[in-house]
Amino acid sequence: MSPVYFDHNATTPLDESVLQAMLPFFREHYGNASSRHEFGRAARQAVDDAREQVADAVGAHPSQVYFVSGGTEANNLLIKGVAARLKPSQVAVSAVEHPSVTVPVQELREHGWKVRRLAVDHAGRIDMDEAKSALREPTGLMSVMLANNETGVIQDVASLAELARSAGALVHTDAVQALGKMPVNFATLNVHAMTLSAHKIYGPKGMGALILDKRLDIKPQITGGGHEKGLRAGTENVPAIVGFGAACMLASDRLAQSSFNLEQMRGRMNQGLRTMGAILFGDGAERLPNTSYFALPGIEGETLVMALDRAGYAVASGSACSSGGADPSPVLLSMGVERELARCAVRVSLGRGNEMSQIERFLQALQDEIFRLKKLAAIAV
Amino acid sequence: MSPVYFDHNATTPLDESVLQAMLPFFREHYGNASSRHEFGRAARQAVDDAREQVADAVGAHPSQVYFVSGGTEANNLLIKGVAARLKPSQVAVSAVEHPSVTVPVQELREHGWKVRRLAVDHAGRIDMDEAKSALREPTGLMSVMLANNETGVIQDVASLAELARSAGALVHTDAVQALGKMPVNFATLNVHAMTLSAHKIYGPKGMGALILDKRLDIKPQITGGGHEKGLRAGTENVPAIVGFGAACMLASDRLAQSSFNLEQMRGRMNQGLRTMGAILFGDGAERLPNTSYFALPGIEGETLVMALDRAGYAVASGSACSSGGADPSPVLLSMGVERELARCAVRVSLGRGNEMSQIERFLQALQDEIFRLKKLAAIAV
Repeated sequence: MSPVYFDHNATTPLDESVLQAMLPFFREHYGNASSRHEFGRAARQAVDDAREQVADAVGAHPSQVYFVSGGTEANNLLIKGVAARLKPSQVAVSAVEHPSVTVPVQELREHGWKVRRLAVDHAGRIDMDEAKSALREPTGLMSVMLANNETGVIQDVASLAELARSAGALVHTDAVQALGKMPVNFATLNVHAMTLSAHKIYGPKGMGALILDKRLDIKPQITGGGHEKGLRAGTENVPAIVGFGAACMLASDRLAQSSFNLEQMRGRMNQGLRTMGAILFGDGAERLPNTSYFALPGIEGETLVMALDRAGYAVASGSACSSGGADPSPVLLSMGVERELARCAVRVSLGRGNEMSQIERFLQALQDEIFRLKKLAAIAV
Repeated sequence: MSPVYFDHNATTPLDESVLQAMLPFFREHYGNASSRHEFGRAARQAVDDAREQVADAVGAHPSQVYFVSGGTEANNLLIKGVAARLKPSQVAVSAVEHPSVTVPVQELREHGWKVRRLAVDHAGRIDMDEAKSALREPTGLMSVMLANNETGVIQDVASLAELARSAGALVHTDAVQALGKMPVNFATLNVHAMTLSAHKIYGPKGMGALILDKRLDIKPQITGGGHEKGLRAGTENVPAIVGFGAACMLASDRLAQSSFNLEQMRGRMNQGLRTMGAILFGDGAERLPNTSYFALPGIEGETLVMALDRAGYAVASGSACSSGGADPSPVLLSMGVERELARCAVRVSLGRGNEMSQIERFLQALQDEIFRLKKLAAIAV
């Protein structure tokens, strides 16, 4: 039996219809989009069409869409690109950002920038007073994610953007986890820049976009040919761009139905987890409909992930991107969770292919594993 | 009838066997390679296997292979990454490098670097005396391509690397056009770093590698998660990495046979072009077996490319990467070609799918177009 995939915040399966949209660009229309012959024109047309699809999905104009190799590159491009064009001042980021934001931001220190970390409350929400207080200092850039990869907690980016704009700061939001799981609108969020990724929405890996207010002057990070209006050099990854466009259309079409289904399943999941004595992180805050982040006190997250893997369930103990480390999640620590408890964190992130019956069986399997692990622990003592 | 593709230096069709190798990683094994469950382990194993395949194809060790989003990113990473770790001095590059080398190198000026352009002779070969003379100045980095994208001219990188090493300079070679068309060996070239791209060898777009001497300390450009041993953050593009590995294996297996076939076809092509009064660029120099770069005096390259496109042949008027501009090729100008003649340049780059009969028909079509264009010109006068 194939294992059950409950790790959709790490990556999603490629939708078969997205793959079907991509295949002609692997097979027949393989031209370089910069070439001036029939193969090139077919590729260019496909890139233009996909740019419209991505723009449509997030309420942006196609001219605001810049294709890059993924969310990490988009975050790096925006942060380093903005900082290179501004006089160093303060950059404000939430305490729960993804490493692809926090690490580039830390690097700005070398160039004279001051980093201000915006604290979050126990549920993982950015404190508005904290944001106001931060913005009293001259601030060049604020970067706040729309939804968190670990907790699924949604930030009030529109309000934060308003505060930031009043203070004269540019605002960026990493919407990688939000896209496809909640409405995402570049115009109504009123940010200057937004990061998207294809492989989190049943699209291909190696593809993402920076949505950018055209009035912003940012320094390109990968230079050479004049691709993407000079902002990102390199031969266009046409099949992946086409796949990203197709995945964006799917995401928009299916959002309402899929949110409803995910919410139902997550509700049952959380109910089951509570009866087992689990502590749910981010509970109470507005959250993505697919994410359950919990801890069973006394059972290490890593241990449980491995046990569940053997039992046929793919879940995560933290962000897949910050792999390897045995350190507790910085996101949880910033929410005031004790280190001991944070080490027990396990994330279940549901997706389109999951069904209620899988949740029921998972809860049973989890119950069994808890029993087994506790027995082992009792023997060890 | 489908047009004939003669633009393999711009990009190649994806080999069907490469696509077949990729498909399971789009469909079943869609995990994030950093995830610690069965889906993640399958993805990680595939990445490891592909790293060995790429290393094998170029005589490197798997630990020297860093996957990035393409040749342009690899060139940027190496140049900017090396420069960030060295005290500014001189960077020496040939006059015929690709924009993904020349543009990042120009940017180093902002950081106090001096750029030394190594002249080439009439056939496009780097002048060894020129290189020696350049290296009398303290030089941090030399970057010289292995084979040129426009002319196909091959540089004696091993000798240049020896000179550079004696002078204490690091050496990088852009081997994007060479790979798959001639033997490429990282160890025997004796360079510190080498750039590869998948889509030039019948692999997927959006994938490349930097082959790097591990003793080199270079600054990562895209940061965040600790992917690729900290040198390049971002979720691994597993299907494309798998495709790159498969394409590298194919390239090695087919090199001898395919070089022979390409050389035969190119020979016939050049013979036909000469009888029409074409001037062949790079003639006399050691060249890739697939590239014909020529000019028919009095016929603009752009015009001829469009005419041939209508006649069903996809060729290029210059590098597809430096698109748009009506300026003559800087590569040709650096070879001492007159501007007027350089504007007439057309590149035919053959590939695995081409056949001798296509060359014969192309030469006939070209003859017809020349006749037609000259008649039009006569009427215009």
